[in-house]
Amino acid sequence: MNDSLQLAPEWQVDQWFNTSAPLSLAALRGKVVVVEAFQMLCPGCVSHGLPQAQRVHQTFPQDKVAVVGLHTVFEHHAAMTPVSLKAFLHEYRIGFPVGVDRPGQGTPIPLTMQAYRMRGTPTLILIDAQGRLRQQHFGQVDDLVLGAEIATLVAEAEADAVFAQPGGEPAAAGCDNGRCEISAA
Amino acid sequence: MNDSLQLAPEWQVDQWFNTSAPLSLAALRGKVVVVEAFQMLCPGCVSHGLPQAQRVHQTFPQDKVAVVGLHTVFEHHAAMTPVSLKAFLHEYRIGFPVGVDRPGQGTPIPLTMQAYRMRGTPTLILIDAQGRLRQQHFGQVDDLVLGAEIATLVAEAEADAVFAQPGGEPAAAGCDNGRCEISAA
Amino acid sequence: MNDSLQLAPEWQVDQWFNTSAPLSLAALRGKVVVVEAFQMLCPGCVSHGLPQAQRVHQTFPQDKVAVVGLHTVFEHHAAMTPVSLKAFLHEYRIGFPVGVDRPGQGTPIPLTMQAYRMRGTPTLILIDAQGRLRQQHFGQVDDLVLGAEIATLVAEAEADAVFAQPGGEPAAAGCDNGRCEISAA
Amino acid sequence: MNDSLQLAPEWQVDQWFNTSAPLSLAALRGKVVVVEAFQMLCPGCVSHGLPQAQRVHQTFPQDKVAVVGLHTVFEHHAAMTPVSLKAFLHEYRIGFPVGVDRPGQGTPIPLTMQAYRMRGTPTLILIDAQGRLRQQHFGQVDDLVLGAEIATLVAEAEADAVFAQPGGEPAAAGCDNGRCEISAA
Repeated sequence: MNDSLQLAPEWQVDQWFNTSAPLSLAALRGKVVVVEAFQMLCPGCVSHGLPQAQRVHQTFPQDKVAVVGLHTVFEHHAAMTPVSLKAFLHEYRIGFPVGVDRPGQGTPIPLTMQAYRMRGTPTLILIDAQGRLRQQHFGQVDDLVLGAEIATLVAEAEADAVFAQPGGEPAAAGCDNGRCEISAA
Repeated sequence: MNDSLQLAPEWQVDQWFNTSAPLSLAALRGKVVVVEAFQMLCPGCVSHGLPQAQRVHQTFPQDKVAVVGLHTVFEHHAAMTPVSLKAFLHEYRIGFPVGVDRPGQGTPIPLTMQAYRMRGTPTLILIDAQGRLRQQHFGQVDDLVLGAEIATLVAEAEADAVFAQPGGEPAAAGCDNGRCEISAA
Repeated sequence: MNDSLQLAPEWQVDQWFNTSAPLSLAALRGKVVVVEAFQMLCPGCVSHGLPQAQRVHQTFPQDKVAVVGLHTVFEHHAAMTPVSLKAFLHEYRIGFPVGVDRPGQGTPIPLTMQAYRMRGTPTLILIDAQGRLRQQHFGQVDDLVLGAEIATLVAEAEADAVFAQPGGEPAAAGCDNGRCEISAA
Repeated sequence: MNDSLQLAPEWQVDQWFNTSAPLSLAALRGKVVVVEAFQMLCPGCVSHGLPQAQRVHQTFPQDKVAVVGLHTVFEHHAAMTPVSLKAFLHEYRIGFPVGVDRPGQGTPIPLTMQAYRMRGTPTLILIDAQGRLRQQHFGQVDDLVLGAEIATLVAEAEADAVFAQPGGEPAAAGCDNGRCEISAA
């Protein structure tokens, strides 16, 4: 009943962290995909968005739900380079894959951020198992609502799987405890 | 696939608050039912369980998900009478219906609490649209998990509705997968 | 320099909990006294005022700072009797002494609450080592501010002790937004 | 009675933010000084230490209590340059002065951090109005405790001021109780 839904734009990423191989939306078809678009110096991302993405990563089975971070830097570019991001991901114990959104030409807004018409960070995006864009939240979204949305997409994917026609088309579609300690030198 | 699931025991309640008429599980068939079993002097109920139940009440559409409180007093009975409960519900702005679990004879544990074999309070119970007991959490459950569980039961109810036979008998209480089960009398 | 400060009114209490003998302000002269006036069914008292009083009780040395609770019931009297209060103090692990403010005649407002002209609950009162009323906060007060106020009174008491004259006179010297306010009577 | 207390080591800072002129401990003599030593990518600093320092900055009168941040980078140096720090201070709305601790030679630990023998970040340091090191907390400290400690130092400073000899020499840096101590050179 959602035939008119658009496929989510593919990510434009040159550099990935926390993954041995580059990811793509196409390759994740079959899973619900939760994208956390953030900047490492965005307070709402650090206090709310990223911890929530980590909870999602820990709560849902990873064969059904993929969590992916996207570093969408649109301000203070010199302060949020990939070198800084790498240290940030380490210190904040971010365990899921994170891609660096490709910088724009003649604009501070990177390319994937443009393609999704994001308004800022944090932005949380839900993509269904057929690769279609289903939700895009700018700012905070409650865990209760987010849990329900993800589960609904998972249930939908499982129902689709049950009723898929055989022979049919492939579904197109040094820190802890709140402090950092100097190690013995 | 859940043919072996048991119907949830009917509630044993003489006094209700926040509702013009007594509620029953049987009459709520067709909705997912979220039961918050609590005591008004239980710290975990006040700080976690009841606020969560209020969030559920505000988040999910009330024609699909019913939130019901159950005052299951098993200690300090003289301190948690219905008179005290009424003041408590007023001060804490509890908006959903709350029933008083019927006291046991020769035991401090009230009857509904016994029937569900609850271990204490808070206990959060999920009952599906067919009246079957699906989850029973003693203590805390995360919003992300709870949101997913409720949405899964809602999606299941909607899938059942879609595949009901046209022209068939109206779904009697307790009927699914082509057969009918006697509902709790 | 605070000669004009008034002595705090003595408490009017018939029943005490968590103490083997009745307390009085007079008998606590020499200590800074922190009074937490609360109602057991006041949400702001349960979530903020009482936990803060417990932190004060645990943080400051008890030979210098006395923490005393005062159950000032001005609404829902039938729901907040001493029997209910006793169970409440047990369940919430309140360890400091708590007195029941003496009911008023012909008014819902109890006598000590009247004497201090409290506006509602929670109210946090600071009395210096000379028995003088120094602060009265209705609603929430930050820990940083409260810690500073208590320490200032303690430092003052110690300075007074250093410079005390031998043989001199003893220094005579409806609930919302997290609080319950007395309505105009 | 604290004659044996040591003067706090002077800060070694080449670059300051949020101040029109460089700060020094010597120039702040007469005020209680609260130093928040942090790293911008240290989670405990971002979630606890810096917000607490901001509360101190807003709560205490600035003519009595000075709040100063110190960026003590001892790991991930390439990720926490002054360029990144500047963006961080802007995004997190840090309003008090912040100095960049001078890098060490042949060690990742910067010079002021070494001089204070800090164990890591966050470290909160209290220096009294006479420039003496009075508290050094590594990790978290409660607001109630911190508020009390700051107020105690403020009360002490005011008592010292009251009992200063009229007509005496102006209090030289490091002088008290009738004698002068050599300040850190």
